[in-house]
Amino acid sequence: MGVVIPLENKNRHAASIKQLVDLTKPGMERVNQLILSKAGSDVEMIPEVANHLISSGGKRLRPMLTLASATMFGYEGSHHVKLATSVEFMHTATLLHDDVVDESDLRRGKSTARMIWGNQASVLVGDFLLGQAFRIMVEVGSMDALDVLSTAASVIAEGEVFQLSVAKNMETTEDDYLSVIRAKTAALFSAAAEVGPIVAGTGKAERDALRSYGANLGLAFQLVDDVLDYGGSAAALGKNVGDDFREGKITLPVVLSYRRGSEKDRAFWRSAIEEGKNDDDALEMAHKLLLATNALNDTIARAEHYGAIARDALAPLPETAEKDALLDVIDFCISRVH
Amino acid sequence: MGVVIPLENKNRHAASIKQLVDLTKPGMERVNQLILSKAGSDVEMIPEVANHLISSGGKRLRPMLTLASATMFGYEGSHHVKLATSVEFMHTATLLHDDVVDESDLRRGKSTARMIWGNQASVLVGDFLLGQAFRIMVEVGSMDALDVLSTAASVIAEGEVFQLSVAKNMETTEDDYLSVIRAKTAALFSAAAEVGPIVAGTGKAERDALRSYGANLGLAFQLVDDVLDYGGSAAALGKNVGDDFREGKITLPVVLSYRRGSEKDRAFWRSAIEEGKNDDDALEMAHKLLLATNALNDTIARAEHYGAIARDALAPLPETAEKDALLDVIDFCISRVH
Repeated sequence: MGVVIPLENKNRHAASIKQLVDLTKPGMERVNQLILSKAGSDVEMIPEVANHLISSGGKRLRPMLTLASATMFGYEGSHHVKLATSVEFMHTATLLHDDVVDESDLRRGKSTARMIWGNQASVLVGDFLLGQAFRIMVEVGSMDALDVLSTAASVIAEGEVFQLSVAKNMETTEDDYLSVIRAKTAALFSAAAEVGPIVAGTGKAERDALRSYGANLGLAFQLVDDVLDYGGSAAALGKNVGDDFREGKITLPVVLSYRRGSEKDRAFWRSAIEEGKNDDDALEMAHKLLLATNALNDTIARAEHYGAIARDALAPLPETAEKDALLDVIDFCISRVH
Repeated sequence: MGVVIPLENKNRHAASIKQLVDLTKPGMERVNQLILSKAGSDVEMIPEVANHLISSGGKRLRPMLTLASATMFGYEGSHHVKLATSVEFMHTATLLHDDVVDESDLRRGKSTARMIWGNQASVLVGDFLLGQAFRIMVEVGSMDALDVLSTAASVIAEGEVFQLSVAKNMETTEDDYLSVIRAKTAALFSAAAEVGPIVAGTGKAERDALRSYGANLGLAFQLVDDVLDYGGSAAALGKNVGDDFREGKITLPVVLSYRRGSEKDRAFWRSAIEEGKNDDDALEMAHKLLLATNALNDTIARAEHYGAIARDALAPLPETAEKDALLDVIDFCISRVH
């Protein structure tokens, strides 16, 4: 039984972020230069650690969202480049701290910074990048953008603590889990998209549209990530398949499979997630139960649902190349499970 | 041979922060309420962890500096209360992360948050408080204050990474060490004092004066702390005497004693700090060498030097109760070694 992806919008061309990458190429070159310059420091360890992560082949989806969501309203200044850099720094800081919190060894197929430079450097360089993110926002001087991004910073951390407090608790509901990912993933996607119309000086409707687009795209993105953790190959993913399982992480596939399973299945999940009996045999069993309960396909269906909301959020906006590219990103995020 | 403190200004009344505490009492009550409200969250672990540290008996010197440095210019609004809360949150976030980085068990005589809730919660609640600090600054809406405080956030983290990179290196010079504490301690004292005149809307001279006062007070404060770590009792200090030594931390007393010692003494310091031979016998030996080289007294003399600069920074300002209280704080910080 394979994972089947129902593509709602079948007449769209093959889902890809190529259009977004092409559209934002000149802007992203400026972002990349600013990243190098603002992650610089006389303290050598800072650019070393920062660049390890920054150059490790992430897609830089979030800063591209910021660029496109500004230029789609005709913005031609440089504030969107600066805020895109802030967004990427906030994301990088979160990853550095996450790897410490999750005790991760690998990210995108490479050793995590904490494995090379230690937990200490990961915590502190994360703090430095967060401080730099705020300094760049101050350079831009938009109090609205500062409001959106500082709120995101709080909400992300709050979501991570909430995740910690529901960790290894198999009674976590789908709603609880959605609260976690709304905060820890969707909040930054949402802020990244909303600061575009802010620097472009649009009205409230455009801000609301981009905020909603970003938030729902973020939810879809995270849910697909949760499926990928049980479904791809390490080479393709740049992460270890089964990482979430071995770390005892509650994700939506697990929530669904647990609630739909027999008493015996639930006992298995409790022993695996709550008591840490998560060897290779247990991972194989988990796969079996996820498929038997249709939990992976239904998690993808949930992702499709949020993707549809994201699509409708942009519907009233004028047809631009940027809008088309942002719509493609939704399909791309979901099609990653192929 | 005891530690002798040469009080430069002998005709001042006994050094205390009582005057500052009294002057800022109504403001600090508002700060304390705002701290409780802004450290609140539906995620229960957040106020638990935050309040553990916030209610653990710190002097709250930094927010008091902010309050006094605003009211000394006649400020009567509420922005200073908000920024004082931001400053305390930034400080608390730093402490939470420091305890993780230093693997500390005790702070102010109590178990550290990381010993009770784990490293994960300490990192993430620190991130949350930093995010909240910026949200409060955004509420105030002063881009100058945001500039000063976001710069401090970066500089503090940069200083901590620098400290990590010179850690356990006995060739660290006094200048290197000063760079570290200028960043990790003095930067927040400086920012805390500078945002006072900013919200009060003074001219540049007043901002410069308070910034310089705060920075030099911070240096004096840290150097005295370094001496206390080799000189007090755990009960009086709320920290374990010898902590810095056991953690292999380079502080000014160690830098001075190492540089002034014989080849044999230097071999001792290397084995203690660089190789971790730091049991009780070694601590006793360290004390002996610190006294023999006059390193503790001379560290206090350095603290006096920065205290004098802080005093002169305030000299041109009008005589107010706040100015008098801020001058008292300098003497208080230095007299703590008694």
